[in-house]
Amino acid sequence: MTRLEKQMAFIEEVDKIKQIGRQNYLADGSRKENDAEHSWHLALMTMLLSEYANEKIDVLKTMGMVLIHDIVEIDAGDTYAYDYEAQKTQKERELAAAERIFNILPEDQANKLRALWDEFEAGETAEARFAAAVDRVQPAMLNSASGGISWKEHDVTLSKALERNGKAALGSEVLWEYEKEHFIMANVEKGLLKNDLEDKN
Amino acid sequence: MTRLEKQMAFIEEVDKIKQIGRQNYLADGSRKENDAEHSWHLALMTMLLSEYANEKIDVLKTMGMVLIHDIVEIDAGDTYAYDYEAQKTQKERELAAAERIFNILPEDQANKLRALWDEFEAGETAEARFAAAVDRVQPAMLNSASGGISWKEHDVTLSKALERNGKAALGSEVLWEYEKEHFIMANVEKGLLKNDLEDKN
Repeated sequence: MTRLEKQMAFIEEVDKIKQIGRQNYLADGSRKENDAEHSWHLALMTMLLSEYANEKIDVLKTMGMVLIHDIVEIDAGDTYAYDYEAQKTQKERELAAAERIFNILPEDQANKLRALWDEFEAGETAEARFAAAVDRVQPAMLNSASGGISWKEHDVTLSKALERNGKAALGSEVLWEYEKEHFIMANVEKGLLKNDLEDKN
Repeated sequence: MTRLEKQMAFIEEVDKIKQIGRQNYLADGSRKENDAEHSWHLALMTMLLSEYANEKIDVLKTMGMVLIHDIVEIDAGDTYAYDYEAQKTQKERELAAAERIFNILPEDQANKLRALWDEFEAGETAEARFAAAVDRVQPAMLNSASGGISWKEHDVTLSKALERNGKAALGSEVLWEYEKEHFIMANVEKGLLKNDLEDKN
């Protein structure tokens, strides 16, 4: 295969992420979101919100990272943020997927995308931490807009939401504070997210 | 509203493009694609295929352009590439949409995104021409992969496909040649795209 044939084969293969369903709903609650839509949203958020990163980020690199961060789910499936059982095998399933899918590309680009994904997974650079932040803020925004349907379906409580989403602060204190106030605590007040911390306060 | 409230209001508003349907199908033909999925795919293609641009492009700028190029369709709807009647009012509908939607953002970002969209529409820079090229190659790839369903549904013939897609050459001669060979002529040979030029050859 020529270089361009390999690139096009990859581009066609990853069309499949349009059919990998996520657990959160669209803002209007009409249906659940898929990975391609989610990744588009994160890339746009990265472009518009990079000014709030705790440390200066390379915006192009971060956009690339969020565009490809869920591609492994074509083989490994979406592992829900609050499904602790599925999370036990998640890493293994995703590593095998990364090995197969990125290697459809010519070697230099396969290595580049694999390194980007590894960097996202490790979460140790400013770009990876910011990508992880928007990856938490976006579904919380949609859960809030759609009236907390997904939280209800999965019995997500305030303590779980704070634990899961609090990691956004590592990438952006500003976005985490916004998320906590507008998308989490506001929904506790509305009774859409169960406050299991009440008696401990 | 604070700056961040305006940004988040925009980010939530544009969630609606996940429900703007396009005429082409996913690669496996199971359903039609939507604008968010399409825009994700174009951003990824820009990242992987920029080496084939006729002129050197600013990749970050071009990725931003393709991520937002269809946002106006939230109000204006998707105008099918071969619907010549709807195209008569397309510009007017899209300008009104741009005016409303981009202005949800803080002024500096509203101006920046509007300028990016205007640049895409004008098609006079290397970035706009490359964006237009991937915007043609991607649906042709999906039409080809899905067995030409969308072409059949809309009576698209070879002459129409060549006229519409030939503009890809302005952004990338290499991608256009690839598209013509693999996604257009190969499907004429398979009988999936009607050859209305045969008697003129």
